[in-house]
Amino acid sequence: MFTLEKKDNKKFSLVITAGDENGVGPEVILKALYSKEIPKEIKIIIVGSQTNFRKTHKRLTNLGVKNIINPNQLEIIDILSNKKYQKISDPYILSGDNSFYYLKHAIEIVKTNSNSALVTGPICKKSWALAGHYYSGQTELLAETCNTNNFGMLFTAKSPITGWRFNTLLATTHIPLKDVSRKLTPNLLNQKLDLLYNFCLKFNSDPSLIIAGLNPHAGEEGILGDEEKEWISKSLLDWKEKNPNVNITGPISPDSCWISSANAWHEKNTNNHHGILAMYHDQGLIPVKIIAQKFSVNTTIGLPFIRTSPDHGTGFDISSKGIADERSMIESIKTAYDLSINSRLFNPH
Amino acid sequence: MFTLEKKDNKKFSLVITAGDENGVGPEVILKALYSKEIPKEIKIIIVGSQTNFRKTHKRLTNLGVKNIINPNQLEIIDILSNKKYQKISDPYILSGDNSFYYLKHAIEIVKTNSNSALVTGPICKKSWALAGHYYSGQTELLAETCNTNNFGMLFTAKSPITGWRFNTLLATTHIPLKDVSRKLTPNLLNQKLDLLYNFCLKFNSDPSLIIAGLNPHAGEEGILGDEEKEWISKSLLDWKEKNPNVNITGPISPDSCWISSANAWHEKNTNNHHGILAMYHDQGLIPVKIIAQKFSVNTTIGLPFIRTSPDHGTGFDISSKGIADERSMIESIKTAYDLSINSRLFNPH
Repeated sequence: MFTLEKKDNKKFSLVITAGDENGVGPEVILKALYSKEIPKEIKIIIVGSQTNFRKTHKRLTNLGVKNIINPNQLEIIDILSNKKYQKISDPYILSGDNSFYYLKHAIEIVKTNSNSALVTGPICKKSWALAGHYYSGQTELLAETCNTNNFGMLFTAKSPITGWRFNTLLATTHIPLKDVSRKLTPNLLNQKLDLLYNFCLKFNSDPSLIIAGLNPHAGEEGILGDEEKEWISKSLLDWKEKNPNVNITGPISPDSCWISSANAWHEKNTNNHHGILAMYHDQGLIPVKIIAQKFSVNTTIGLPFIRTSPDHGTGFDISSKGIADERSMIESIKTAYDLSINSRLFNPH
Repeated sequence: MFTLEKKDNKKFSLVITAGDENGVGPEVILKALYSKEIPKEIKIIIVGSQTNFRKTHKRLTNLGVKNIINPNQLEIIDILSNKKYQKISDPYILSGDNSFYYLKHAIEIVKTNSNSALVTGPICKKSWALAGHYYSGQTELLAETCNTNNFGMLFTAKSPITGWRFNTLLATTHIPLKDVSRKLTPNLLNQKLDLLYNFCLKFNSDPSLIIAGLNPHAGEEGILGDEEKEWISKSLLDWKEKNPNVNITGPISPDSCWISSANAWHEKNTNNHHGILAMYHDQGLIPVKIIAQKFSVNTTIGLPFIRTSPDHGTGFDISSKGIADERSMIESIKTAYDLSINSRLFNPH
């Protein structure tokens, strides 16, 4: 297992996985690490294929892309060089398999080295499955490896206009829409509210939370869905009873739940909230991607370390074209650092 | 039944219902009709209670609200004066019952008078139900009264920045989230695509359409939901086969489906689409309300006349405070006129 050298012990380390190397992961990493926005005091460690990074660099250079770092300047841990896992001829399944082991290896580094955090490049769930790794996403592998039950997928973005931090936690994540209602339980809501509150506490001593409803118009008193009336409202009251000093509002009609976020993103001095709990993936991600656009970063909360990732996918369709946008990777790196160092979240595990 | 006087026969008439009079409907109507943005050439007919409009006017005046029209200047058809329907003591049920009959009456006026359109004030579905009127919304009563099976709830907004018209049609509307998957069928998608295409044709001879997926990441090839893989993609191909010259794209990952709409709203010369089909209420309404904000108007398409309504609810919590925003009512009136007169949609039924 990789251990940081003694001289680096006190320096904050960021481990970055390449993600699926048929996608845009390596390209956005090379572009992002060239950016002057990356704090110089971070030690960067990449887990991926040296050969692939060199090829990507060459391809981008041939395409005329200039603002990229030379992989020879990077510390790349190449676990492929002695990989014994499986022999795979299909390049998509192979890169799926590789990206799975990059993540597993990166987790071990971050777990065993204090003062570090993790940024993960995008992977393809289907390629993972074809390679025999059945997880609904990287977050689930992270939770399993860290032996954590209460974790959450939170999207965070700092408005470049107002400086306001926009936080949306998903109560359910990568599941079919038709399964959302039965996956939601009072216990789950309770856990997610704890997670969201604890996360927001790191930035504000008196956070206020908003909770979206599940159904159109938050069920409109049972006419458009019964979950709010039957148990969601009561669950929120129960949580409020345990946390009497916390300002929570909900369940709010989902279609107006993020309007105040859009205002707070664009205008200073609005009446801002600190965190929103969305009931399902697209309920939360549709507004996040419209409001925060490329500034949005996927963060796993509830792990013993900070993990962020860009909020885009592998982008197989635009891979190797030199046109992938590195903004979300830059934000992922900055956010991992910000959450680890500049907030009370810092946990030297 | 009300018939337009002879002299008004050629003038375009707009029938506006008060909606639920415990809500903000009358207030936003009085505010909107004062606005200079309302085209002078429209004849306005209101269906509601004269007494309530006078009381609302007095209350707003006492609150210091100035920019409102005096109801004495308005033509108000007051069906309450000889109402024989039911005796109701609960004011909420009474106003629910009244708002139901306002709409029924207004529909008859518009149906029997050519060159007219309908704008509906917001109603409370629960109050309708308590008064014995079981409809999931005004749209469903409109469809039933007009004997129409193939109708749709479309949200339209014209960007004040770029002039681009942003159209989102909902495939399913006021139903619980857990019922969405089984309500969606190939036949339904086919009908909605026809409706959306025909609507967009009125503004553009070569419309391009975007269709959102149902599941996170549009199912990610079946990993996160099977509807896209099992039938949605095929349904889109079937429709495309019948309409080979139409440019359609989908199913798109819902969380990125409206990003191009946000761009087209704010910036000229983007690569614009003309209509989006959303699979369910909040999938469509969350982005519409964030992007178009108060400019969004609810339009029923597939009826023999144009019907629009503000995209907000009754606002019981802010009623009688003088703070309700009339923007969406103004846009509803302007849009009903625009769609009836200034586009090829005009149908003198």
